[in-house]
Amino acid sequence: MRVAIVGATGAVGHELMKVLETSSLKFSELQLYASPRSAGSTLEFRGQPLTVQATPEGALPTDLVLASAGGSISKEKAPRWVEGGAVVIDNSSAFRYDEDVPLVVPEVNGEAALKHRGIIANPNCTTAIAVVAVAPIHRKYGVKRMIVSTYQATSGAGQKGMDELLAETHKVLHGQDAGHQEFAHPIPFNVIPHIDVFQDNGYTKEEMKVAWETRKILGDESLLISCTAVRIPTLRTHSEAITLELERPATPEDIRELLATAAGVEVRDNPDQKLYPMPLTASGKYDVEVGRIRQSLVFGGGIDLFVAGDQLLKGAALNAVQIAEDLQRRGGLPGH
Amino acid sequence: MRVAIVGATGAVGHELMKVLETSSLKFSELQLYASPRSAGSTLEFRGQPLTVQATPEGALPTDLVLASAGGSISKEKAPRWVEGGAVVIDNSSAFRYDEDVPLVVPEVNGEAALKHRGIIANPNCTTAIAVVAVAPIHRKYGVKRMIVSTYQATSGAGQKGMDELLAETHKVLHGQDAGHQEFAHPIPFNVIPHIDVFQDNGYTKEEMKVAWETRKILGDESLLISCTAVRIPTLRTHSEAITLELERPATPEDIRELLATAAGVEVRDNPDQKLYPMPLTASGKYDVEVGRIRQSLVFGGGIDLFVAGDQLLKGAALNAVQIAEDLQRRGGLPGH
Repeated sequence: MRVAIVGATGAVGHELMKVLETSSLKFSELQLYASPRSAGSTLEFRGQPLTVQATPEGALPTDLVLASAGGSISKEKAPRWVEGGAVVIDNSSAFRYDEDVPLVVPEVNGEAALKHRGIIANPNCTTAIAVVAVAPIHRKYGVKRMIVSTYQATSGAGQKGMDELLAETHKVLHGQDAGHQEFAHPIPFNVIPHIDVFQDNGYTKEEMKVAWETRKILGDESLLISCTAVRIPTLRTHSEAITLELERPATPEDIRELLATAAGVEVRDNPDQKLYPMPLTASGKYDVEVGRIRQSLVFGGGIDLFVAGDQLLKGAALNAVQIAEDLQRRGGLPGH
Repeated sequence: MRVAIVGATGAVGHELMKVLETSSLKFSELQLYASPRSAGSTLEFRGQPLTVQATPEGALPTDLVLASAGGSISKEKAPRWVEGGAVVIDNSSAFRYDEDVPLVVPEVNGEAALKHRGIIANPNCTTAIAVVAVAPIHRKYGVKRMIVSTYQATSGAGQKGMDELLAETHKVLHGQDAGHQEFAHPIPFNVIPHIDVFQDNGYTKEEMKVAWETRKILGDESLLISCTAVRIPTLRTHSEAITLELERPATPEDIRELLATAAGVEVRDNPDQKLYPMPLTASGKYDVEVGRIRQSLVFGGGIDLFVAGDQLLKGAALNAVQIAEDLQRRGGLPGH
């Protein structure tokens, strides 16, 4: 099987290559594509240099495209890649809400990927991180209401976002005013409750993505979900405070036991030892850390919890590769 | 009237002096007390140098004590100050839950201060900031459930907390590992869902303070409140995402109108112009910024909003001085 990464030089592209290096995905060739500006540069994969090519206009000579070059490029080119015979796993939001495009987190709804018509969508990072923790709870106890407040890292805006945080923080520490380009306001030592564009209902698109995508992945349109999405000055892990009202009451011990064996989850919940989810420990980790599990004080039998997941991994690159691995295992991709 | 600040050299002490400089409180003398280590140093007040004295064991020769030297000092010494004839406005949590100690946010329950028996408690910073926005909503629409996620600044751990953030961030930018002393883990580019000590129910004391104190200030023990308190790498303003279920349905427009004339609140809610509450704009400001006001997606007729308030001001020093101003206006302190 031939694999192509489109957007190879970005932050997610970088992580895609790292994840593929140790992935169980069987493939014989890796092609790297990026903007013409990056064409000709080389990136190392499994000890070998690979040359980055400019993404061509038409089809790609590949079986699988891992696309992470932004929504407009995906919107324009993915249909051509599909026409050329490739399966596309797309990291943008371009196709996520199309009825015939599966939106997949393998631990939760891996089988949905088999129904693709060429394109499989990778969810929004915040959603992917939340849903690995919430899906097992929903299956066993039935989530009725879900309230999410996010603590989102600058990696959500790509390498440029992380670079801006570091460079502008450096300025502030040296007595200069921070500027901003990737974010709506200066990000050092600040909090910006504004990610993606505002919708008519006063929520941002980022906040609505969590509601729309969680419902689609869990296959339950009756779920009530509200999100506040907030950018904070961290580098690459998103944290989320989640409050759940449940159909059937659960205790924190029930949830700890349930999640202890859940795929993609590391229960990190020992306050006595100061163990709880944090960017410091979750960054670079495949599993999503889940902790601060406690009985809700507003919903009888409900649960409060806190999660931290690497935005570039489970929130992007890792999930995309896991979709491919899972699909190959299920016979939906060439096996070698 | 003679006024004494105990803990004058700390972060809140510094802000108390700044707030008193332009306060309407009428007083003839200001005394500054701190630990023996700081005794003999001078601080400037209204252009005059004042000498810091070591806090004595017994009574203070003053009419009003603004205490901000920590819970154990307040617990030990406040009763003696009261015996000596002073009214004590205490910034620690030592007396907040005592039945005969009023817990006061002047915009909300200023009249409660009159019932003091010597000690008036200043609420926890997170509570004070939330309650100026929530109280008018509760009065008009009846809050049933309140879910709070906080984004708390390092100033909550005093000057040392802010210094640690700056010094450790500097280290990280220069390729060194960050250490920690004031916080349970390194704070630069990190998120720590742990403030104050853990309780048996899995919540931290900081989280329970928000529940206990909001109920006490609003005088409504039936209110259901759940909080997740999170330390983030910012300097001095706490932000909070708040979801409210209401007895009587309200629209975002209703709430914007209501809060436009609420004391202590600045409605900052114009997404089109990128105006919403942020530490960058709320720091140093007396009013609490309130924005991102929108219809809850989980509670019919409920409201989601976002607040940002200076932890050292409305969350501490300003509220303490406002209690004194209000009490003097109501005749509960000497008038000159």
